[in-house]
Amino acid sequence: VDEFALIAAIRERLGPPGPRVALGIGDDAAILRPSRRGVVLSTDVAVEGVHFRRDWLSLEDIGFRSYTGALSDLAAMGASPTSGLLSLILPPDLGAARTLAIVDGVAAAGRRYRAPVIGGNVSGGRELSLTFAVVGEVGPRPLSRSGARVGDGVFVTGTVGAAALGWRLLDAGLGEAPEERVFVERWRRPRARFDLASRLGGVATAAIDISDGLLADLGHLAAASGVGATVHVEALPTEPGFADVAPRVRGDAAELALTGGEDYELLFTAPSGRVPRGLATRIGTVHQDLGVGAFEGGAPRAVTHFGHRHVV
Amino acid sequence: VDEFALIAAIRERLGPPGPRVALGIGDDAAILRPSRRGVVLSTDVAVEGVHFRRDWLSLEDIGFRSYTGALSDLAAMGASPTSGLLSLILPPDLGAARTLAIVDGVAAAGRRYRAPVIGGNVSGGRELSLTFAVVGEVGPRPLSRSGARVGDGVFVTGTVGAAALGWRLLDAGLGEAPEERVFVERWRRPRARFDLASRLGGVATAAIDISDGLLADLGHLAAASGVGATVHVEALPTEPGFADVAPRVRGDAAELALTGGEDYELLFTAPSGRVPRGLATRIGTVHQDLGVGAFEGGAPRAVTHFGHRHVV
Repeated sequence: VDEFALIAAIRERLGPPGPRVALGIGDDAAILRPSRRGVVLSTDVAVEGVHFRRDWLSLEDIGFRSYTGALSDLAAMGASPTSGLLSLILPPDLGAARTLAIVDGVAAAGRRYRAPVIGGNVSGGRELSLTFAVVGEVGPRPLSRSGARVGDGVFVTGTVGAAALGWRLLDAGLGEAPEERVFVERWRRPRARFDLASRLGGVATAAIDISDGLLADLGHLAAASGVGATVHVEALPTEPGFADVAPRVRGDAAELALTGGEDYELLFTAPSGRVPRGLATRIGTVHQDLGVGAFEGGAPRAVTHFGHRHVV
Repeated sequence: VDEFALIAAIRERLGPPGPRVALGIGDDAAILRPSRRGVVLSTDVAVEGVHFRRDWLSLEDIGFRSYTGALSDLAAMGASPTSGLLSLILPPDLGAARTLAIVDGVAAAGRRYRAPVIGGNVSGGRELSLTFAVVGEVGPRPLSRSGARVGDGVFVTGTVGAAALGWRLLDAGLGEAPEERVFVERWRRPRARFDLASRLGGVATAAIDISDGLLADLGHLAAASGVGATVHVEALPTEPGFADVAPRVRGDAAELALTGGEDYELLFTAPSGRVPRGLATRIGTVHQDLGVGAFEGGAPRAVTHFGHRHVV
């Protein structure tokens, strides 16, 4: 299969670009129709051997989770996705069929989040990688990392630690038991919280998605806001069974919840009374002192690392 | 240097994002202010060992030429650049100083084309690569590849073959002689033709930039337009000295001009009378028959390959 035949096949798998796109795949560039809203842009990469392993993920999973992770940055801005660009570096032994299986996973995430891939690029290389540029539109009140105020509560959507427990199970040669598979699935097929992102406008003072890890990302948010924050381990929301399964891997449940990344849940700060019931769980408080920390049983909790996003 | 310190240093090298940017580097995503014009998007990658070699280019050259090549796709749409995103995959032995030298080259291209890098990503990996997403605004009449009409002339801006001769000189261990250096420089520091792109609206029926090679890119344009085209070797504009220096590398001057890529000149079709004097050189004609070909001395000219963009 030559490069241009492969691009034609990729284009077919990705499907039609939808009404917002004036010109899609196949020209020098894609064109989005004008919008009265500000355009939000982000880029993210998934590199084989750094962010994923082929024996831990199906080819479709690789495409699905890497595009979802890239799109999640838009959710963290309170934005809605419009489209994406995909730049693939393909090692010579990958072949067209496997490439198209990865693209199928990308296309599935694109359908899920109504973010069609409208352009891209294919290159040879020694190392498989998927680089996404994601494009969205901000709402009337875009969120940033830098608006947290002293006295705000710290909130998180959904649960924390599940995805990190998932890949650590795989790393330990586990993950097949029924009570383990839910965590592996959370890593393999994460969700970006666009369902909640639109509700954060006018509520949150600052927001970020949990990609590096709860404490690490809270650190980014606090640093950008010029404040500090503490969280309480007892308050962290986790999936049913999390505390039972976590001891099967290295580290303990609290450590996983505090430092495990790739959840793509939204971490935000807000005045307590402003957060609607059911939107998120309050886990801590914004302080004047710089830095972030965790408390457990009323005492500071040490963690060996704040979080990392590289699985290999 | 840790990842976050490196990102802070990169951000400083890239400079301020300018008035069109509501939020630049440092958050989950960047935000562009709304515009009444359509947004144009493209992505391109430069991979070490595929698109460049460190012994042929300075680190600054790597950054400058890869960003310029990515931006050129916007020129081919008759668009003006707004900004770019840079996703770097950095091998462990590269180090911060070399990374920042590459970023300096990116920043220089960004200043040249008024396209500040407003966001990005840094990842580890085994293979150095720079993936760009480029963002622009279309004029009132965006160009595409697909509007060429039978009877249109085929035109090219500037000269062809110079960049390809440049890297072939390096490949042959040459390039130091004064008459050779101009070609090497054209490959190391290409220019994107935004100076001419804005003049093609209302003139060109279809356009593309020469990245893969004159005949290859003419083939893309013709296929997208559902037409064919022929060009005449005698009409091809080349740099002074091109015919003298070309015999020092493999292939002949005509072959280099027909198939050498990475010129980033604009190839377009237009009714002959509509093209202002001095904008471009007429090199051929659009036909009804599919396919593209070259004529030399009135007879079909065979080429061993239509063009390629991989230097290694």
